[in-house]
Amino acid sequence: MTAFAWRLTEAGRTPEPGPPPLAGTGSTARRMLVVAVIVALTLVGAGGFAAAGSTAAVFAERPDGCDRPDRSITLYAVELPRDGNQIRLGYGRTPETASYPGPTMEMTEGECLAITLHNQVPAATLEQLRTEPTHPLGVSLHVHGVKYTQLSDGTAQSYSYVPPGQSRTYTWYAQKRDRTTGSPGTAGYWWYHDHVVGGPHGTQGLGAGLFGGLVVRRPGDQRPDRTYTTVFGDRQSINLRRGADTDTCDHDNPQPGPTCVVAKKGERVEFIVVGIGNDMHTFHLHGHSWADTRTGLVTGTNAQADQVPIIDNKTLGPGDSFGVQVVAGDSVGPGHWMLHCHMQFHSDAGMSTLMHVLDEDGKMPPGGGHDHTAAKGAAAPPGAGTAARADDAGTHQHK
Amino acid sequence: MTAFAWRLTEAGRTPEPGPPPLAGTGSTARRMLVVAVIVALTLVGAGGFAAAGSTAAVFAERPDGCDRPDRSITLYAVELPRDGNQIRLGYGRTPETASYPGPTMEMTEGECLAITLHNQVPAATLEQLRTEPTHPLGVSLHVHGVKYTQLSDGTAQSYSYVPPGQSRTYTWYAQKRDRTTGSPGTAGYWWYHDHVVGGPHGTQGLGAGLFGGLVVRRPGDQRPDRTYTTVFGDRQSINLRRGADTDTCDHDNPQPGPTCVVAKKGERVEFIVVGIGNDMHTFHLHGHSWADTRTGLVTGTNAQADQVPIIDNKTLGPGDSFGVQVVAGDSVGPGHWMLHCHMQFHSDAGMSTLMHVLDEDGKMPPGGGHDHTAAKGAAAPPGAGTAARADDAGTHQHK
Amino acid sequence: MTAFAWRLTEAGRTPEPGPPPLAGTGSTARRMLVVAVIVALTLVGAGGFAAAGSTAAVFAERPDGCDRPDRSITLYAVELPRDGNQIRLGYGRTPETASYPGPTMEMTEGECLAITLHNQVPAATLEQLRTEPTHPLGVSLHVHGVKYTQLSDGTAQSYSYVPPGQSRTYTWYAQKRDRTTGSPGTAGYWWYHDHVVGGPHGTQGLGAGLFGGLVVRRPGDQRPDRTYTTVFGDRQSINLRRGADTDTCDHDNPQPGPTCVVAKKGERVEFIVVGIGNDMHTFHLHGHSWADTRTGLVTGTNAQADQVPIIDNKTLGPGDSFGVQVVAGDSVGPGHWMLHCHMQFHSDAGMSTLMHVLDEDGKMPPGGGHDHTAAKGAAAPPGAGTAARADDAGTHQHK
Repeated sequence: MTAFAWRLTEAGRTPEPGPPPLAGTGSTARRMLVVAVIVALTLVGAGGFAAAGSTAAVFAERPDGCDRPDRSITLYAVELPRDGNQIRLGYGRTPETASYPGPTMEMTEGECLAITLHNQVPAATLEQLRTEPTHPLGVSLHVHGVKYTQLSDGTAQSYSYVPPGQSRTYTWYAQKRDRTTGSPGTAGYWWYHDHVVGGPHGTQGLGAGLFGGLVVRRPGDQRPDRTYTTVFGDRQSINLRRGADTDTCDHDNPQPGPTCVVAKKGERVEFIVVGIGNDMHTFHLHGHSWADTRTGLVTGTNAQADQVPIIDNKTLGPGDSFGVQVVAGDSVGPGHWMLHCHMQFHSDAGMSTLMHVLDEDGKMPPGGGHDHTAAKGAAAPPGAGTAARADDAGTHQHK
Repeated sequence: MTAFAWRLTEAGRTPEPGPPPLAGTGSTARRMLVVAVIVALTLVGAGGFAAAGSTAAVFAERPDGCDRPDRSITLYAVELPRDGNQIRLGYGRTPETASYPGPTMEMTEGECLAITLHNQVPAATLEQLRTEPTHPLGVSLHVHGVKYTQLSDGTAQSYSYVPPGQSRTYTWYAQKRDRTTGSPGTAGYWWYHDHVVGGPHGTQGLGAGLFGGLVVRRPGDQRPDRTYTTVFGDRQSINLRRGADTDTCDHDNPQPGPTCVVAKKGERVEFIVVGIGNDMHTFHLHGHSWADTRTGLVTGTNAQADQVPIIDNKTLGPGDSFGVQVVAGDSVGPGHWMLHCHMQFHSDAGMSTLMHVLDEDGKMPPGGGHDHTAAKGAAAPPGAGTAARADDAGTHQHK
Repeated sequence: MTAFAWRLTEAGRTPEPGPPPLAGTGSTARRMLVVAVIVALTLVGAGGFAAAGSTAAVFAERPDGCDRPDRSITLYAVELPRDGNQIRLGYGRTPETASYPGPTMEMTEGECLAITLHNQVPAATLEQLRTEPTHPLGVSLHVHGVKYTQLSDGTAQSYSYVPPGQSRTYTWYAQKRDRTTGSPGTAGYWWYHDHVVGGPHGTQGLGAGLFGGLVVRRPGDQRPDRTYTTVFGDRQSINLRRGADTDTCDHDNPQPGPTCVVAKKGERVEFIVVGIGNDMHTFHLHGHSWADTRTGLVTGTNAQADQVPIIDNKTLGPGDSFGVQVVAGDSVGPGHWMLHCHMQFHSDAGMSTLMHVLDEDGKMPPGGGHDHTAAKGAAAPPGAGTAARADDAGTHQHK
């Protein structure tokens, strides 16, 4: 079924001018009740609208404030190798680098970005993902937080999607805060995703991998040393991966990536955390905490900072996104710090990974280094008392 | 089952004075363990209570700070036409205007409001909704956020409900913030609902439609041009409606109402967002965002504003309520902006509507105007590239 | 299954020095895609790591900032009498006082606490709770919010747990806020729990009762008169109890405890609210509200306070914790104020209790005093109109 069913002011037709005929449009008693309520509710606002005139402007290509894009980039939507039987799609700056999540985007308040999306996903694949035969085939780019007109909404109902083999340019504007207009600004931790594949809400596109993180910074914001995008989705997965697949760090040479979260002690690590799908999740990180603010940091005076909750676990629903900034290993030192959803059946099902914090020299102390086999049971129990764990290292088997 | 099972200080009886007999009241080992824990926990606070004396005051009719109501209004609870087999109830300022949600209430901090509720719902209907035979028949008014005594709690356990055919006056006091007493104030986005129909938590009353929004303003607060109350409930519905029923705007003459969200570009639109039922939801609005503050706006100095998250998607559980204020079409222009729950199976099941933003003249540009049929498939694919969408308007079929 | 499957820098082995071999490590086309994405994502941060050197430090016993513990306490994990067939475990300052939730801990920012945990839970019990045969047997102490090294993480993967019959000392450090290092401070409402019983996330330990509240205060924080720890868990329970078991107040002599929430009018009551398990819940308190801040109070200037949402219902997911401070009965007076989850099927299933607010003399007005029998049905309907409820008291049957 389509979720949008609406009837709009038709372009070429002139409705009757004058005050709105609030009564007389209902055909049943129930209809009249509803109409009457509209009157009551209307009193709260500024009243009804005058009927529309006969001429109307067209939708603008760019949002107000963006005279022309400051920057233009290209994005590709491609099909990736399947994960078992599951179709996987991804966005990439090139077709070859497409993945899920897609590339993390970064903007600064005041900036206007043009993104030309090329849809290279085969029509046959989109057809397979379609949940109803009349829904259009295409891929889109819908973004949270920044400004865009209807032409860049990325929805089927606004026709702002890209059929297979075609392209379309989306314009995003990171509007600044402005007290006079009431704009709260757009600095924040956001995300972008398809809104068309499979149905009117892009549910199949999202589930296949068409999503990525976006951070909009305010001039003066503290910049992180590393940024990871962590997307919690259905079937208890982080970035569509779970269990061992969420932590593929090469232990000889850990390199940051969507399945290898690693940092040196003292580095400022930023997580863009996003919820997708149908379920609630929580982002919990061992040994580290952050402020529940726009940036994850506390700023301002002591009195301002004193009101701010500090947390180490944050619940998010689908569509929510937020940012976390931590100083890796601050006070707690290096180690393998668990990062997991605190819904127990999610974490037990594999929605769990590790942030590997190396020491300042980029090395991992040996005490906690052991392999999956050792972790799974092992003959070696931990020493009693407060004996430093390094003493136990030798008792665990290392591969 | 009833969820409240409690044993209170009996009115006419004098317990033993002196220090509490903490031990010796348990009859099993387990009981003693629990009692022992009580001792441990008590240490955190200020210790146990002395036994109650022999005289006790009665419950006050009005909360402290409200010497007499500043305003008195009347409210009716009535049965509405069924929705299929489903019983529907509504609150209304008159029986004829009752609906779901009920009328949006507005108060200012410092104000005291008396509401006389007349229960016109037939006893037979309440009996049908009752989930256990001994639960009392009645309708009540329970409110969030503002102050009221036990006599206005609107619960069965406090006997503050209204049997069929009777009435009762509830007193709400919008207490001001007061640093000396520690009162945080009551300005905020709240809601009211039945707490009695069907069972001790009013689950059946809520599900049938007995709920409405309440906004308490602080003197000096920015006032909106339009206010909509958006209630997310079970079975993936907005205000108990879903799919096409969530957007019944007359496209010749859109008038604001619970199923027609419409505004002119530049108007300040306020949403009172409420969660009911058993499920989590998110409020997501395309093209618009707001501050996660008391009012949805950022105020104060830059340093204060800098800490505040700006969001365009907010998760809410049952009982939660918050306010969103946006300037319609700011930067993004007019158009049909989706408003939906971002839980994909909720939006796919019809928990989705549109905010129709007209231009400053009250007109909708033609580019996006099309009907349900066109939206569902249509021969006309969107143009590639960045061609202004207005060019496509002619290719879509308009009714 | 275990959720952690990781491969770390092996202690005794020296990887190749020099720049990381980012290409060439994949064995399939898909692998290469992933690797390529890593490159793209890395651009956001500060790039890859140099290979680790040959020597590495060991994990520290105490977090930076804690030279030695300021205070040392002892904690026991014991098995409690079963609840039907259900195994119950608890933490206690002595074995005899163990319960669920465990003792509420309190720290002040800057303080370092050493807790020696003795595991007195029989190995046979832990074996019964184990969900896979190779998982180690033990109990642990994992804490939220404060600082600890890997040796006090309380996880199986870091070997920081306690086998049956043994003990281990955990060190918690309530780090202060520090603008120069970026530490946001640790003042807040937290909790501690087992992370090992049954599986790698302690799901069975949590479900059996191994959890408790922790509050970290900032010097100058307003202190409450009473503190209650309220844990919402699966099967719709508060502190693993539901229905009548959540309110066991002796009505002759109500004494504060985990199943008797009571306060005198004007007392400052603090709730440490924690979510565990697999489900979402909301904390809703009738007649009282609080600020959505670090402490539940508003502080600072009017401009700062004006931004803060005041709420009376807050959603929490598993792992979340927050603090609520209210002045009991402020404006609303004494009474039996419902405290429940607003998920209707949770409250209907018994996730509901009462906060009994006595008057300033420690007495409960008679108007609302009645027993379970009366509440469940009763012949006496409430009086119509605004008649003071005290008039009705005589019509209800009191035990």
